[in-house]
Amino acid sequence: MTQPSRVAQPGLVAIEERAVLPRGFLAAGGRAGIKESGRPDLALLTVSGAEPAAAAATFTTNRVLAAPVRLSRAHLAASAGRARAVVVTSGCANAATGPAGDEDQRAVVAAVAERLDATVEQVLCASTGLIGTRLPVERIRDALASLAPDGLRADDDGWTAFGEAIMTTDSRPKSASARISLPGPDGTVREVVVSGVCKGVGMIHPRMATMIAVLATDAAATPTTLAGLLGPAVRDTFGQLTVDGDTSTNDSVFLLASGAAGTRDVEPGTPAAEALGGAIRAVCRSLARQQAADGEGATTLVTCRVEGAADLDDARAVARAVVASSLVKAAVHGRDPNWGRVAAAAGAARREDGRPVELEPDRLRIGLCGTTVFEAAPVDFDRDAVSAAMAADEVVIELALGIGAAAAEAFGCDLSEEYVRENSAYST
Amino acid sequence: MTQPSRVAQPGLVAIEERAVLPRGFLAAGGRAGIKESGRPDLALLTVSGAEPAAAAATFTTNRVLAAPVRLSRAHLAASAGRARAVVVTSGCANAATGPAGDEDQRAVVAAVAERLDATVEQVLCASTGLIGTRLPVERIRDALASLAPDGLRADDDGWTAFGEAIMTTDSRPKSASARISLPGPDGTVREVVVSGVCKGVGMIHPRMATMIAVLATDAAATPTTLAGLLGPAVRDTFGQLTVDGDTSTNDSVFLLASGAAGTRDVEPGTPAAEALGGAIRAVCRSLARQQAADGEGATTLVTCRVEGAADLDDARAVARAVVASSLVKAAVHGRDPNWGRVAAAAGAARREDGRPVELEPDRLRIGLCGTTVFEAAPVDFDRDAVSAAMAADEVVIELALGIGAAAAEAFGCDLSEEYVRENSAYST
Repeated sequence: MTQPSRVAQPGLVAIEERAVLPRGFLAAGGRAGIKESGRPDLALLTVSGAEPAAAAATFTTNRVLAAPVRLSRAHLAASAGRARAVVVTSGCANAATGPAGDEDQRAVVAAVAERLDATVEQVLCASTGLIGTRLPVERIRDALASLAPDGLRADDDGWTAFGEAIMTTDSRPKSASARISLPGPDGTVREVVVSGVCKGVGMIHPRMATMIAVLATDAAATPTTLAGLLGPAVRDTFGQLTVDGDTSTNDSVFLLASGAAGTRDVEPGTPAAEALGGAIRAVCRSLARQQAADGEGATTLVTCRVEGAADLDDARAVARAVVASSLVKAAVHGRDPNWGRVAAAAGAARREDGRPVELEPDRLRIGLCGTTVFEAAPVDFDRDAVSAAMAADEVVIELALGIGAAAAEAFGCDLSEEYVRENSAYST
Repeated sequence: MTQPSRVAQPGLVAIEERAVLPRGFLAAGGRAGIKESGRPDLALLTVSGAEPAAAAATFTTNRVLAAPVRLSRAHLAASAGRARAVVVTSGCANAATGPAGDEDQRAVVAAVAERLDATVEQVLCASTGLIGTRLPVERIRDALASLAPDGLRADDDGWTAFGEAIMTTDSRPKSASARISLPGPDGTVREVVVSGVCKGVGMIHPRMATMIAVLATDAAATPTTLAGLLGPAVRDTFGQLTVDGDTSTNDSVFLLASGAAGTRDVEPGTPAAEALGGAIRAVCRSLARQQAADGEGATTLVTCRVEGAADLDDARAVARAVVASSLVKAAVHGRDPNWGRVAAAAGAARREDGRPVELEPDRLRIGLCGTTVFEAAPVDFDRDAVSAAMAADEVVIELALGIGAAAAEAFGCDLSEEYVRENSAYST
């Protein structure tokens, strides 16, 4: 039996799955009573010094944009990518709330700016939770009073608390951190941290950005450089993630750079930019995989690796289509090595531009958990052995298209009865 | 409370949900032992006279084309749209089976041609069932010997048996028939029947054609005219249907016209073409709705009507996106009037060309089972009353976009734990 050759693995940067607060930041999580459960629902990240951080962000492409997405976009433009704080509220999406919702979000941001002596344009924001409900502005204002500035912490615990306070249906907090070395002044080398936290295990589907993630680094770079590094990293990680095919109204990814590590400004196209971009990508990839593994009702992370595609768009589309297929997801849940569903999902894949992908069944190889199950025609394989292998925490589906040289990967999860139960009774 | 105005209802032709065999055809269903259950799995439709019928078809756009799809496409081209028979086998998709699968399908078709004294190019075929398994050709040949010509019937029971023999995971057969009047010779008027049967309740997602449907009429028309009428009808009906977002490798819709009603040839652009096209569309629409209502694990038909869209592509895309959303489907299952998920799904809709739709939340109205729940901002409504209304056999979701004048509809079903159970253990 031929093994499909492995797709080159991105993410060569070593990743710790914990929150490491980069220098130059303070963070905290608190309770504003947005969630009926009383769990933490207010998260604040700020710079510790007098200077704002360089900031970049990507947002959902949904046409129903939540109030915080509109406001953050406007603030990033007005401040030319300079931010002093990110405030996240969970339990209420503040989406589809009309002009009153915009007013609420501005009030929350104004309260943060006042507590931190910042301008409102230097405050970015995100909200997540139920669509169509209003933010309890007064309670948030009260909670902010105890959180900032006195509740803010300069250690990893503050950053961990931030990550916990942004959760909704997540079963666990998600964080990832990388350490790299970048050039400092006069030929010195400085250690830099890139660390991110995120939330989101439902209404997750690739469209530029999915869910809420906040990344921070103590590297120094301009907002334009950051945006140039963040965009491709998001495209290949969060952009290749799907839990249920639904794209949220609130998806936001923020990246803030304090420069507190004392490095020189990272310039585009340099080895330093490559190193920083690689670390950002590795953190995003780890966070996306943690989201998929914690997908609503999920028991298994599903990774699809595609190689031999005509081009990158094709490779990405095929990988996404396989992990997005309800039938593939259900088969994985049942540990059923039903490769026919993988072939059908791959063959129906559409690129972002709507065009079908190039795929020829007589050149196609499919691997399930390392065993080739299809190679131009069905292959005899040990169904029981593959089914047993599918009981792992991660099921890897490999497709070699045999057409070109492009490769990509995508992340998803199995579809369980529990997903349906969770989502049949959410707002009522 | 304002009621969203109703989208114009297509399908003004009266429809009976039963199989009415048009004149000029014979039909039968039989058992070839493809299904382990021993249920009927071999269906045959033939013309009763010496002349072949005019034929048109639409097929799946999946890149992994099943052997019967490739063969039927080749035969339609070779015969210039003239067919004497359609043979359907169920229980085995004959997809992703390589050259051996092509050989099997040719053998089945050759056996049909031999029994009917037809050329092989006059025989169309479809197969449906598990991907990657082989057809038991010898057993099918044996079963055909008892089915054709002696087992073929000229009555509705034969057509009903055809519809039963093509089922796989369907819980009931699906059929629809319309009667219209068309011009006969010398100023007379003749009654014409358009009747269709279909199967398919899983791996159902709009992409030109979904599932297997066979329509027959005793009207007279050229293959080109038939194709011109079938294409738009399929686009607006089966093309707007989704059960699980998965596009099958085997989807096929066939339309055969015997001319046995004694009508004059229907010419494109005439009132007769409009009448015949309307009947074809009404039959397709009824079949698509029956499929959605019988979707795997489904308890409710979900219809989404969109109006006020910028253009037809936008209207279709929004309607499809809403019924395809896992979160909307789960909310319907839980009788949860969670309109935020409807807004989010609509806002994330993509047209077939990959472009986002035009949608402005502040012009948007959403209706659930006849009650307005959102109109530029959340609307106070009686949640318990709407939840109770959602317990019906059909849940209607209406969106008025307030942008242009285009309207469309789409059909889907709720997402249940039963869907996951059914699809977690299919091949093993």
